[in-house]
Amino acid sequence: MIVLASDFGPAGPYVGQMTAAVLAEWPEASVVDLAHDLPRCDPRRAAYLFAAYAAWFPPETVFVCVVDPGVGSAERRPVAMRVDGRTYVGPDNGLFEPVMRRAAEPVRAWRIDWMPERLSASFHGRDLFAPVAARIARDGLEDPAAAGLSPIDPDGLRRTEWPDDLDEVLAVDSFGNLISGLRAAELGAGARIRIGGRSVACARTFSDVAPGQAFWYANSQGLAEVAVNGGSAARVLRAGVGESMVVSE
Amino acid sequence: MIVLASDFGPAGPYVGQMTAAVLAEWPEASVVDLAHDLPRCDPRRAAYLFAAYAAWFPPETVFVCVVDPGVGSAERRPVAMRVDGRTYVGPDNGLFEPVMRRAAEPVRAWRIDWMPERLSASFHGRDLFAPVAARIARDGLEDPAAAGLSPIDPDGLRRTEWPDDLDEVLAVDSFGNLISGLRAAELGAGARIRIGGRSVACARTFSDVAPGQAFWYANSQGLAEVAVNGGSAARVLRAGVGESMVVSE
Amino acid sequence: MIVLASDFGPAGPYVGQMTAAVLAEWPEASVVDLAHDLPRCDPRRAAYLFAAYAAWFPPETVFVCVVDPGVGSAERRPVAMRVDGRTYVGPDNGLFEPVMRRAAEPVRAWRIDWMPERLSASFHGRDLFAPVAARIARDGLEDPAAAGLSPIDPDGLRRTEWPDDLDEVLAVDSFGNLISGLRAAELGAGARIRIGGRSVACARTFSDVAPGQAFWYANSQGLAEVAVNGGSAARVLRAGVGESMVVSE
Repeated sequence: MIVLASDFGPAGPYVGQMTAAVLAEWPEASVVDLAHDLPRCDPRRAAYLFAAYAAWFPPETVFVCVVDPGVGSAERRPVAMRVDGRTYVGPDNGLFEPVMRRAAEPVRAWRIDWMPERLSASFHGRDLFAPVAARIARDGLEDPAAAGLSPIDPDGLRRTEWPDDLDEVLAVDSFGNLISGLRAAELGAGARIRIGGRSVACARTFSDVAPGQAFWYANSQGLAEVAVNGGSAARVLRAGVGESMVVSE
Repeated sequence: MIVLASDFGPAGPYVGQMTAAVLAEWPEASVVDLAHDLPRCDPRRAAYLFAAYAAWFPPETVFVCVVDPGVGSAERRPVAMRVDGRTYVGPDNGLFEPVMRRAAEPVRAWRIDWMPERLSASFHGRDLFAPVAARIARDGLEDPAAAGLSPIDPDGLRRTEWPDDLDEVLAVDSFGNLISGLRAAELGAGARIRIGGRSVACARTFSDVAPGQAFWYANSQGLAEVAVNGGSAARVLRAGVGESMVVSE
Repeated sequence: MIVLASDFGPAGPYVGQMTAAVLAEWPEASVVDLAHDLPRCDPRRAAYLFAAYAAWFPPETVFVCVVDPGVGSAERRPVAMRVDGRTYVGPDNGLFEPVMRRAAEPVRAWRIDWMPERLSASFHGRDLFAPVAARIARDGLEDPAAAGLSPIDPDGLRRTEWPDDLDEVLAVDSFGNLISGLRAAELGAGARIRIGGRSVACARTFSDVAPGQAFWYANSQGLAEVAVNGGSAARVLRAGVGESMVVSE
């Protein structure tokens, strides 16, 4: 399975052309769109969200993740890495830092040397990352050189100064729920989250609190999410992406 | 073919993870996204819209439909049912009432007893319904017990107090057209629909009325839809979801 | 590969039912959604955008493109055409004019005579174009009559009065970039584009200009696109779809 994530949004031909670029390389591929609304041009916030979304997927999944404000610049390298049986393809801008940090086994990493005949200045998702991911999914990583990959030191890709979890709002879903970068399993059920001047307690799910009440719960991605039963937490707490979510016991 | 419908909206990882949950169970599955903008948390309105959308599909289609405000509560059971050759998987909250009511042959129904290793509190679409639907689509329903299904009385799932058709606006499409829960074939071509203080007559299609004129027509889903030639019926008639659409001859 | 494009927008069952109509005819088909936000009911603008989007795809691709305000009227014919190895299926309203005009080899065209059992008045994308495209992709075009196609003179489909390139904004992407109907390769790198009372010069990409500066560049679709580094060109230049983009040297 090849899984695509990006900050492209739903408009335009971008998602479709990335999908087609995979299929042009490997017509039998199964391609799944995970999310194309990752935080726009913001690899740090996107990284924590993507790591949570990706954790659910089965072993052997190949991910292409493109949040890439540095596309076309010389400093930003295209990379692939192998973490606990899955493969991640994208830019080396920190997007895979939480994935690497949470690895159980040693990470392997490669620079993508392969170059397509046509490389646009702004759409490496289609021209570079998608075909490389398709080849990896089809052929495996036994012969990385054949896939145009050179081994590099994974430590060179790390953002060691980043925190283990991000204590802020990373996304607001279509219900107005506020999704944090905090892994719920790292918080006790007794933990409270301070947001928008309020302190909210944990509940298992919506039906466990009174209508109109704010609470946090472990969402289906394993992240702490602040919600209001029957309402929009974004509106009630006047909070959006970037709002601080401070944990207290 | 496995067809997904929900009220998840386009944001977040929900649709992609449901698709991946099907493919994880059955990699050869064809998965189609029918609509993820069903009326939010509103199984009754969603039911009439879904029944119309689903009616077009070929026999043997397996549908997963998730509009599930009661997710995680004990009263709401996960069910599967077989209606006129097609299979429907989802919560037992009335979402399949119009489908059952319009059945030509006797309906069969099952409670889903199978439980995944990981069942999130809020995302049974991914954790429960999608894998069950994939197994049904792959293996058929000759041995429901093997799929983790126990037979139940379909009458226990009915909402007999609901009407045959819903005489209100169920959705506003991106053209501003007002889609009702009224099957057009049940109305005469001479019927008029009263909405927003106006009474509109039937026309075959847009080009049959003057620019700016409101009319109703049998849309591609077999539902009566109120439109304005060259304009937005939602704006012209100041109507949205829930607005009453009363039929007169 | 069967590639779908339309002006349907993301709402409703339209894209899913078109996809299902392809799969009902040919279950092994690979279906890709290219873009469903082509300029609404505007075949002329949509044509230049679609031609640019489509140019990237591999040979043998079969496209279904539906921007079809005349659906259901007698004047508008359903057609298929073969241009430089690819196939295009849709209405004969000019939607394929730029594709035909840029053809290297002689174009062949057919009227679609085949009629489905059920033809809705408003959704020929699902009922007519998708099944025909599936059959062409599966069986080829060696025997057009078997696919329900009658040869017609491609010259009868032309819009010779239309320009080679369209010097206006055809789309605003989710970053606020302004996408023109001008092929960048036809402009010199020294060309300037006048838009919203400003004249902007060419740059290779975002990182080559100062923050806040407007510029145009060759986008990933080969079109001239006006952008603002770190901002929204739509907002800065107060421009939207239809705004004139005049080229000067």
